[in-house]
Amino acid sequence: MDKMDLTGVFAPLPTPFDENDRVDPRRLRSALQQWLATPLNGFVVLGTNGEIGLLSDDECDAVVETARAIVPAGRPLIAGAGRESTQATIRVVRRAASLGADAVLVRTPSFFKSEMTHDNLARYYGAVADASPVPILLYNFTTATGVNLAPATAAVLAEHPNVIGIKESGSDIAQIADLVALTPPGFRVLGGSATIFLSALCAGAAGGILALAALLPDACARLFDLARAGRLEDARTLQRRLVPVARLISGRYGVPGLKAALALRGFDLGAPRPPLAPVTAAALAELRDALAAFEVVTA
Amino acid sequence: MDKMDLTGVFAPLPTPFDENDRVDPRRLRSALQQWLATPLNGFVVLGTNGEIGLLSDDECDAVVETARAIVPAGRPLIAGAGRESTQATIRVVRRAASLGADAVLVRTPSFFKSEMTHDNLARYYGAVADASPVPILLYNFTTATGVNLAPATAAVLAEHPNVIGIKESGSDIAQIADLVALTPPGFRVLGGSATIFLSALCAGAAGGILALAALLPDACARLFDLARAGRLEDARTLQRRLVPVARLISGRYGVPGLKAALALRGFDLGAPRPPLAPVTAAALAELRDALAAFEVVTA
Amino acid sequence: MDKMDLTGVFAPLPTPFDENDRVDPRRLRSALQQWLATPLNGFVVLGTNGEIGLLSDDECDAVVETARAIVPAGRPLIAGAGRESTQATIRVVRRAASLGADAVLVRTPSFFKSEMTHDNLARYYGAVADASPVPILLYNFTTATGVNLAPATAAVLAEHPNVIGIKESGSDIAQIADLVALTPPGFRVLGGSATIFLSALCAGAAGGILALAALLPDACARLFDLARAGRLEDARTLQRRLVPVARLISGRYGVPGLKAALALRGFDLGAPRPPLAPVTAAALAELRDALAAFEVVTA
Amino acid sequence: MDKMDLTGVFAPLPTPFDENDRVDPRRLRSALQQWLATPLNGFVVLGTNGEIGLLSDDECDAVVETARAIVPAGRPLIAGAGRESTQATIRVVRRAASLGADAVLVRTPSFFKSEMTHDNLARYYGAVADASPVPILLYNFTTATGVNLAPATAAVLAEHPNVIGIKESGSDIAQIADLVALTPPGFRVLGGSATIFLSALCAGAAGGILALAALLPDACARLFDLARAGRLEDARTLQRRLVPVARLISGRYGVPGLKAALALRGFDLGAPRPPLAPVTAAALAELRDALAAFEVVTA
Repeated sequence: MDKMDLTGVFAPLPTPFDENDRVDPRRLRSALQQWLATPLNGFVVLGTNGEIGLLSDDECDAVVETARAIVPAGRPLIAGAGRESTQATIRVVRRAASLGADAVLVRTPSFFKSEMTHDNLARYYGAVADASPVPILLYNFTTATGVNLAPATAAVLAEHPNVIGIKESGSDIAQIADLVALTPPGFRVLGGSATIFLSALCAGAAGGILALAALLPDACARLFDLARAGRLEDARTLQRRLVPVARLISGRYGVPGLKAALALRGFDLGAPRPPLAPVTAAALAELRDALAAFEVVTA
Repeated sequence: MDKMDLTGVFAPLPTPFDENDRVDPRRLRSALQQWLATPLNGFVVLGTNGEIGLLSDDECDAVVETARAIVPAGRPLIAGAGRESTQATIRVVRRAASLGADAVLVRTPSFFKSEMTHDNLARYYGAVADASPVPILLYNFTTATGVNLAPATAAVLAEHPNVIGIKESGSDIAQIADLVALTPPGFRVLGGSATIFLSALCAGAAGGILALAALLPDACARLFDLARAGRLEDARTLQRRLVPVARLISGRYGVPGLKAALALRGFDLGAPRPPLAPVTAAALAELRDALAAFEVVTA
Repeated sequence: MDKMDLTGVFAPLPTPFDENDRVDPRRLRSALQQWLATPLNGFVVLGTNGEIGLLSDDECDAVVETARAIVPAGRPLIAGAGRESTQATIRVVRRAASLGADAVLVRTPSFFKSEMTHDNLARYYGAVADASPVPILLYNFTTATGVNLAPATAAVLAEHPNVIGIKESGSDIAQIADLVALTPPGFRVLGGSATIFLSALCAGAAGGILALAALLPDACARLFDLARAGRLEDARTLQRRLVPVARLISGRYGVPGLKAALALRGFDLGAPRPPLAPVTAAALAELRDALAAFEVVTA
Repeated sequence: MDKMDLTGVFAPLPTPFDENDRVDPRRLRSALQQWLATPLNGFVVLGTNGEIGLLSDDECDAVVETARAIVPAGRPLIAGAGRESTQATIRVVRRAASLGADAVLVRTPSFFKSEMTHDNLARYYGAVADASPVPILLYNFTTATGVNLAPATAAVLAEHPNVIGIKESGSDIAQIADLVALTPPGFRVLGGSATIFLSALCAGAAGGILALAALLPDACARLFDLARAGRLEDARTLQRRLVPVARLISGRYGVPGLKAALALRGFDLGAPRPPLAPVTAAALAELRDALAAFEVVTA
């Protein structure tokens, strides 16, 4: 890959487990073959939806290796690689790179939330970017971490040649607009919230890394294309139809909901890892109804 | 006026006080003459920026009367008319209508925040809409009130023939998109936050009621026109330049900041009413710099 | 009254309405006779639980007049008298005093939350205390107002000879301890949350103004006495038994819940004023059960 | 140890690092000798203040082993042992037990905050308690995790014979009172917030695990004794004097502040691990002043 183009729609992939709660490379290979047949621009393993917080370092290696063996060059493969200490993150970033990840996605540390000041975050990401053999994407997910990587901090980091973009999972559209305004043109701001994806694009985002894209890749790619083409009315209609599904898998039922919904669409990813539990029958019915409602209208 | 068209950019007007802290109709007349010469689509008196919470009912009457005598038919004059009890709101709405307001803007009650359930809000607005001689605009301003008028509630109220729109002051773009999606085409969703005005328009809002529009009416009108014309890139550039000023007057320095900034632009509205205090010299300098920076770039 | 002693347990009284949603002095007189027969140390009219936000100024006058005619000297009668503007609060405070209130309870203004800085609050309360013919009690109720009157601000105000105490409705026990520590010995810190009343007393509070005290005056007075006597184990047991009822009337069901619960105990206060609505049958049953559970154990 | 008595004051110990950012057993041994000479009832290693989030599993082992070699039987040595997945926590708990920890402190998982429901937490702690060779202490620290272990959930878990208590780091005194009320007499509720330690004891807590106790062990032990003896007035005075220091090390300056303050008191624990950074010179001066102010008054 000459220069990675992080424009478009990327899917964060859930990590499949087998019946004994072990990472299951066979299931991952099989699901990846299905995702490769979609118009998705690239893939993220070991993100929040990949249950990264519940995996050991060895398991992380296995996931990157397995994915890399399947995902061809030209389709960016991004590996989540944030840890809490600077030294641990550097170790993990190097491993991911050596196993073939095209870029790494580095979430803000959050164990000591109140210490995650501008200075500490700038030093942390600077050290990681210096040490990483591959480009890094910043990753801000305040709802999950309680930490906010402010646009002013991202703007400083965007000057590092090895920092190529940010995944901003929040739905504060002013913050997304600030990120676009304060960073250079080549720096990619990727939205992380499917419910406001159109708004993020209107605000200048270059694309998105969306759990919803793992589930409804064609629709998410279409929404991106409509927005790019300036067909706002059609884009709004599609965005609106995607919202109910997006809310169920990203908000209400989380990773267990995403895995259950993917199962309804023919993906076999096993159960989430405890303490996560599979969704209830009622939640499953709700997911089925939302997917059916979406498909009926779009068919 | 045949049928009011609440599309475009509206300004909420500060209430001028004289040196003895009394409402000053002379200053209001004079300022209104200045605003009438701008491309603003209409005006709101007695809104949050009109220090409505600090005015007596008699003072409210004086403001509406004074404004009506100046604002010509065809430029909608909207009067803020929310009170905490249903009976008080109905009284005030009727007075505003009898004094010539074209429509009333009715903020959610908030004295008993946790009681402002769907049912209670639906009953409240239903009773007010039934009793009002003029159309009503719902008004949701969660940051100020601690109450959220959910899109599902607004959707029910939008079916009342006397409820013609909503001012949504929040910056939750998903909520604005929901309001647009859940209400009939003729129902107007107006943004209330200048920092995300472009995003609100992209999400389907019909316009905005923006404190910033009182201060920079031409620029706000131009932003609206650019968005309408699908010139997103230019619109983003203008939006970005407006943000620093918008944040100072709506967030950081509030009504005192707005009055001070207006004074810098040649409007004489007196001081805010205690317990509000005029801005400090440092704040004034900050406002002056932000305005100058905006003008330099746009000139 | 020589010198008011604001030590002990005070009840904020709901305002009774008649079938036409008018203030009902007859019902108020009758209920006051019942409360006078309890060990309560004094009474607050026109507080939050008195639906002050929903009353006109004339109605406020009627409530103070009616109560004063019944409550004998020696049992402090405190009138809620906060308004949003400094001038309006001064007017109301003077009226309450002229109608016989022994003291006034002045809630922080909150229409412009972000403007309620130390300086603005200090000026506001200073002006009100200067103008008031009777002593004033500060009133901090952050959950309801979104404004926090910081202990450092209260400490400054406590030096004014006409400021005799504070009602702190929050449950932040560190803030209550700070208030006690930072104010002079004669300044009374009164808790406003029945669920943590014992903790407030342990932290040095002189008593409380508790909605629960209108409903269960004997039990609240007993809790105060036990804490004063250092019988912490017994006090904890009683506090714990009071919590379920306290949570229903102050948190879950608010003023409608308090009025309904009082009706179950033989008080006739009519319905709450719209937009408040009476509690549902299910809520009423829950209140009845909680009261019954409390009485069974204490009997 | 026959039966562990988790009554009294425990200190969570910072983890010392050497100049190369490696865990430093020598410094730990030396500091432990100093702490053993205090009246502290026991010690917690690998807690939040032990920078547990920044340590590898091997480093955790080294800390437990080192501490166990020094802390004599009879002074409980508790090891923090929470991880995000159930399987990882079970592994870590077993290692800590095999290395001599008397009990383990298991913080709520928080990677998937919204999934930490009653059911998932009950299953998680149940599985851990079943598997643990030593008793477990629940650990709720909502400010740090965004997860709240509700008293109703703790009450269910308290019935497990291997769950002996909870560290509740919050300052919601009603929640502490609920924990005491809903759990059996032998179950120990330990406060985790020094600023409200006295209030927690008044509410029925059996003691505390307090960062402040690592810094001011004698004063914390004295506060506990005063409260136990019913000397509330003296206890309040001491609590109040401790608050400024407690706020600096637990709130404002966090673990870097605690390490810096300990250095001022003759403990050598090295710097915090990046991304944490040592406190600034200004912060150090503030800590020095607060400690000096405390010592002057208590001397």
